[in-house]
Amino acid sequence: MDIKKAVITAAGKNQRTLPLQSLVDRDGTPRTALTILIEEVLQAGGENICVVISPGDESAYRAAAGPHTDRVRFIEQKDPLGYGHAVHCARSFTDGEPFLLLVGDHLYVSRAAENCAQQLVAIARAERCAVSAVQATHESNLPFYGTIGGRLVPGRKGLYQVESMIEKPTPTQAEQELIVPGLRAGHYLCFFGIHVLSPLVMELLDRQLKDDHTPRPLSLTPALRALAGRERYLASELSGRRYDIGAQYGLWLAQLALAMSGRDREEILARLTDMLAQHALDHSPRP
Amino acid sequence: MDIKKAVITAAGKNQRTLPLQSLVDRDGTPRTALTILIEEVLQAGGENICVVISPGDESAYRAAAGPHTDRVRFIEQKDPLGYGHAVHCARSFTDGEPFLLLVGDHLYVSRAAENCAQQLVAIARAERCAVSAVQATHESNLPFYGTIGGRLVPGRKGLYQVESMIEKPTPTQAEQELIVPGLRAGHYLCFFGIHVLSPLVMELLDRQLKDDHTPRPLSLTPALRALAGRERYLASELSGRRYDIGAQYGLWLAQLALAMSGRDREEILARLTDMLAQHALDHSPRP
Repeated sequence: MDIKKAVITAAGKNQRTLPLQSLVDRDGTPRTALTILIEEVLQAGGENICVVISPGDESAYRAAAGPHTDRVRFIEQKDPLGYGHAVHCARSFTDGEPFLLLVGDHLYVSRAAENCAQQLVAIARAERCAVSAVQATHESNLPFYGTIGGRLVPGRKGLYQVESMIEKPTPTQAEQELIVPGLRAGHYLCFFGIHVLSPLVMELLDRQLKDDHTPRPLSLTPALRALAGRERYLASELSGRRYDIGAQYGLWLAQLALAMSGRDREEILARLTDMLAQHALDHSPRP
Repeated sequence: MDIKKAVITAAGKNQRTLPLQSLVDRDGTPRTALTILIEEVLQAGGENICVVISPGDESAYRAAAGPHTDRVRFIEQKDPLGYGHAVHCARSFTDGEPFLLLVGDHLYVSRAAENCAQQLVAIARAERCAVSAVQATHESNLPFYGTIGGRLVPGRKGLYQVESMIEKPTPTQAEQELIVPGLRAGHYLCFFGIHVLSPLVMELLDRQLKDDHTPRPLSLTPALRALAGRERYLASELSGRRYDIGAQYGLWLAQLALAMSGRDREEILARLTDMLAQHALDHSPRP
């Protein structure tokens, strides 16, 4: 399974400006969130990248892609018909090949030498099948994520055969259908925001979109659920964490995580200490 | 001295995207840096705002001005001829009236009930003259700021008569010409990024720009130095701090300062503690 193509989705109405935000990367270099994601993909062996955007956003995104603009194809999602529809917009780009899929409103901070996309691509290559990255997530965050149920692949730590899947389940649904043995109480396997998908996913989305009975907006979950019934489809925990940069203070936390795991760890801790001390002084009683 | 007009400069080549960045404001609402600056001005009594931008940036800036777009006039600085030239681009807008001037690459966090621009406008109204906000700044930061020398206005804390001024002085220049009695050792009065300026400043800039012997790029300092020789011109410390969002980790520190001084103080401290604890756990030896 050779994975040379990657799709980054950034057309959601509340996420359009997120990939354009500036951060300082782990190596101390300022980069946009989009450039950080593109470099995650390139390091994982991706060679061609498609970014699905809202109409009118191309010039801002071209600027935000920085040195990588020439590798990126921008495809507009003309109407806000859901995440599944956004992925399907890249069908002519993936053109029957497997592909890496990343959401544009998250950043990923690896705890290993390999970045998160690299870890996932290595698993997909070794297992020769589609694999979604998942993260054990507290039930309070279920409203934000697609969540899977499954069982451990025998003898493999953190690798699961996907058996069921619900988009943004309620805690009751999760408790009844998505309990995974071995996780901490109240925790479920929620999508991490990175997938390696097989070409069949695009065909399944295509069929769903041609079927007038499919509800709109169309999420990706029905296609992935159908995939699990047709092909071997795994979910894997990775050594790393995802940061939702669209959440309140999400960019700030992502920046802290990047700095804490990178070159500027001591600098950011020093600045943090200075700021907290300064704040305490500014708000202490004066003589 | 009635101050109804404000100019925000955002055309510098390294600051063009800074006002477009997203932050969470002190009240917990997501806003762009530009909107935060515009609201600083509106609260200070500004009614008409001119933003000086680089050619081609207007549509992104219009979007970033959010609910205030209709109050804002955008003027392009066609060529990068310096900060003084950028201010002069707004001459037809200020049209012989005094004006508030803010740099677009800083955010201001007040420690008082009034915001920083409000504090400065109140001083300018009471003193009926141009006033630049200044902040006691360690000499290590002299390369980033215009710096003044002066003497305290008798009986007034933090209010200075401006006597000399050097743009980005060396520590030696500062020590020889800009020592201000009463500041901590190694500290100088550097510009804060907010000024209330009289119409004469625009005339002085106009004359300098028409004089072929004036060096280009033209900073604002020569006009302000000339102003000090022609009119009463004060500098004032404010109750608050400036944050350079163009500096490394500047956006991150500004966000921390906004949150620490606003509604989400406890939340940001809780998230910070979580993140530091999680980082420690992730990097501790495992059994």
